[in-house]
Amino acid sequence: RVNGDRLWDSLMEMAKIGPGIAGGNNRQTLTDSDAEGRSLFRTWCESAGLSVGVDKMGTMFATRPGTDPDALPVYVGSHLDTQPTGGKYDGVLGVLGALEVVRTLNDLGIRTKHPIVVTNWTNEEGARFAPAMLASGVFAGVHTLDYAYGRKDPEGKTFGDELKRIGWLGDEEVGARKMHAYFEYHIEQGPILEAEEKQIGVVTHCQGLWWLEFTLTGREAHTGSTPMNMRVNAGLAMARIFEMVQEVAMSEQPGAVGGVGQVFFSPNSRNVLPGKVIFTVDIRSPDKEKLDRMRAKIEAEAPKIADALGVGCSIEAIGHFEPVTFDPKLVTAVRDAAERLGYSHMNLISGAGHDACWAAKVAPTTMIMCPCVGGLSHNEAEEISKEWATAGADVLFHAVAETAEI
Amino acid sequence: RVNGDRLWDSLMEMAKIGPGIAGGNNRQTLTDSDAEGRSLFRTWCESAGLSVGVDKMGTMFATRPGTDPDALPVYVGSHLDTQPTGGKYDGVLGVLGALEVVRTLNDLGIRTKHPIVVTNWTNEEGARFAPAMLASGVFAGVHTLDYAYGRKDPEGKTFGDELKRIGWLGDEEVGARKMHAYFEYHIEQGPILEAEEKQIGVVTHCQGLWWLEFTLTGREAHTGSTPMNMRVNAGLAMARIFEMVQEVAMSEQPGAVGGVGQVFFSPNSRNVLPGKVIFTVDIRSPDKEKLDRMRAKIEAEAPKIADALGVGCSIEAIGHFEPVTFDPKLVTAVRDAAERLGYSHMNLISGAGHDACWAAKVAPTTMIMCPCVGGLSHNEAEEISKEWATAGADVLFHAVAETAEI
Ligand SMILES: NC(=O)NCCC(=O)O
Ligand SMILES: NC(=O)NCCC(=O)O
Repeated sequence: RVNGDRLWDSLMEMAKIGPGIAGGNNRQTLTDSDAEGRSLFRTWCESAGLSVGVDKMGTMFATRPGTDPDALPVYVGSHLDTQPTGGKYDGVLGVLGALEVVRTLNDLGIRTKHPIVVTNWTNEEGARFAPAMLASGVFAGVHTLDYAYGRKDPEGKTFGDELKRIGWLGDEEVGARKMHAYFEYHIEQGPILEAEEKQIGVVTHCQGLWWLEFTLTGREAHTGSTPMNMRVNAGLAMARIFEMVQEVAMSEQPGAVGGVGQVFFSPNSRNVLPGKVIFTVDIRSPDKEKLDRMRAKIEAEAPKIADALGVGCSIEAIGHFEPVTFDPKLVTAVRDAAERLGYSHMNLISGAGHDACWAAKVAPTTMIMCPCVGGLSHNEAEEISKEWATAGADVLFHAVAETAEI
Repeated sequence: RVNGDRLWDSLMEMAKIGPGIAGGNNRQTLTDSDAEGRSLFRTWCESAGLSVGVDKMGTMFATRPGTDPDALPVYVGSHLDTQPTGGKYDGVLGVLGALEVVRTLNDLGIRTKHPIVVTNWTNEEGARFAPAMLASGVFAGVHTLDYAYGRKDPEGKTFGDELKRIGWLGDEEVGARKMHAYFEYHIEQGPILEAEEKQIGVVTHCQGLWWLEFTLTGREAHTGSTPMNMRVNAGLAMARIFEMVQEVAMSEQPGAVGGVGQVFFSPNSRNVLPGKVIFTVDIRSPDKEKLDRMRAKIEAEAPKIADALGVGCSIEAIGHFEPVTFDPKLVTAVRDAAERLGYSHMNLISGAGHDACWAAKVAPTTMIMCPCVGGLSHNEAEEISKEWATAGADVLFHAVAETAEI
């Protein structure tokens, strides 16, 4: 069993870096806080005897050698970056949980045949630079390095420049590493485990996603002196598209979600009808057919809605991953570990995307989840208990040790 | 007749300060550009022999003395501040048109019994600091000075601090000046004059306004892992309120408008359902009953819409003026001047609010309008012709000269 107190202390220590305003964290990717979090993590890795490599996307790989020089490593990790108003556990639990696995192996003096590599992927959240899971995407060959370097934050700063600026541009070729397996431990970010009173989520699938970025073009005009029938009202078109997305998602229940988290009005002045409205629709389903049907419906309906108001409508897919089925052997290893340790468990489909979704393209992969209070995540109020955190880390420890071959 | 070329040259000269990105201006109130525009205007006033006073709201009063020491001045003006993506004429035409009146009187060596005071009101637009027409509102006793000083821009800077910072905090008590009359010349900002092919709008009324600032409280949650039936979706509530506002405005046609220009999502991240959505509904009508009925309907319906989604809804009225009827004698003076000069004209109701609406509370007041292309305003593409600008300035010249008694 892992040392739950040590894991918890590390979580609390990391949470001091990039504090939020309401008890959570704002440690967005490639900010100064991200750099500080990385340095602390490196210190911990080095203290645990790991050697840290960094690739050209800034992803950190902290290696514990194995006994067989020819055996490929087992990778275990997640991400240390957060949402602008993020919780203390989303991603962090997976990285520090992996570190706890290594620390426990050290405590027990256990060597494994395969090396174990604790991994911190860059820009999982995609909050500052879309899309999410960017570094793991480049690693898996889904995006090119140039594409990633060119991604811009809302201020127009590029990923490439910011990675250099914070001093975490490494020299390893991205994706050069080969994996025996990849494990990711994460909070559920949803309400199911808590509602079902299960300690462990055995993650069998991850739902797929489309991010559709809309640009609506209306006519900037005075809110007072522009008669109703002369308006080219992009804000109203946006409202109707929101409602339509809601209807599309509801029509595909169960097993589908759709909504909008980000909106920019321009010029965003109280007495100016917006000339431009930009927003991103986020749709997801574990069922590829459903997911693509939702996209098709939305892309068919939205231009009609805009057109009826004279509003221009362009749609760009700026994020996508297909639904993923995790490796059956690893899934079984996780379930067996939970069973052996006496933890209650159930199968889960991940609602959120994870670096594991991209890793699954290049290695046998699976995930372990623990509950979170009220299913709340991407919220500073995100909360888990030490017991939940420890149970998941115990399962991770067993599954990794078995896969890395003690 | 005024010197249309000189007026036009001054307009073009002023437009160089705080240039926009598409041919218009971004000279928002109490910015460095505003300070620069004020300095240029002061230079012009002093060259025309005017003495410039500044009050504690930063409003500039440039006086041409009259022949009768006991006669109250005729005030003529508008504003030099602009929207973030504003045009070159909105407000500016009224200030520089007033200056052109004085320059023409100087050219012709005409003295008037009443002094004439060219006026530049601070913060008419209300884009940076709500509400609009702030300084004229304090002048007319509608707002207190403390209220005005405490208004905050989106970055949290206060009006009071920014007025001091740009060096335009004057020493005159606000509202201490008494007016014989107030004239304001402005572009229509609407489509009627152009459509009716009239050169001059004789403004008889101004419609009233409510700005209703909504704060919707949802639950920040992950867009992927939060099932549809567990969402507290403030973005969706906003969309439904937009639609409802549209319906309310349409149900009061003709003679009513309603829409939304400003929206803030928080945290505004693509994969986070917003925890908070703030937006301002702008409703207007020349008919007080209609205006207040629209407000009542919106305030009755919105909480029901939000409630049905579990979303919290609070509404604050952050801007208001009642419909205004301008002074019949001054209106007649304007109409007679247009007639005398041979300009086509028609009665108009101002769709936008103006400093004249507040001045009307403390002095006989009226307005003159000229057409603008496509009715477009609060848009960098705002355009007028030199001929239109000149015709309105001619009418202003005649009406002011008559009222100030040659
Ligand atoms: N786990 C997580 O929140 N990842 C960000 C990508 C997503 O929106 O699913
Ligand atoms: N004229 C003008 O645009 N004033 C700003 C106040 C309003 O929105 O009517």
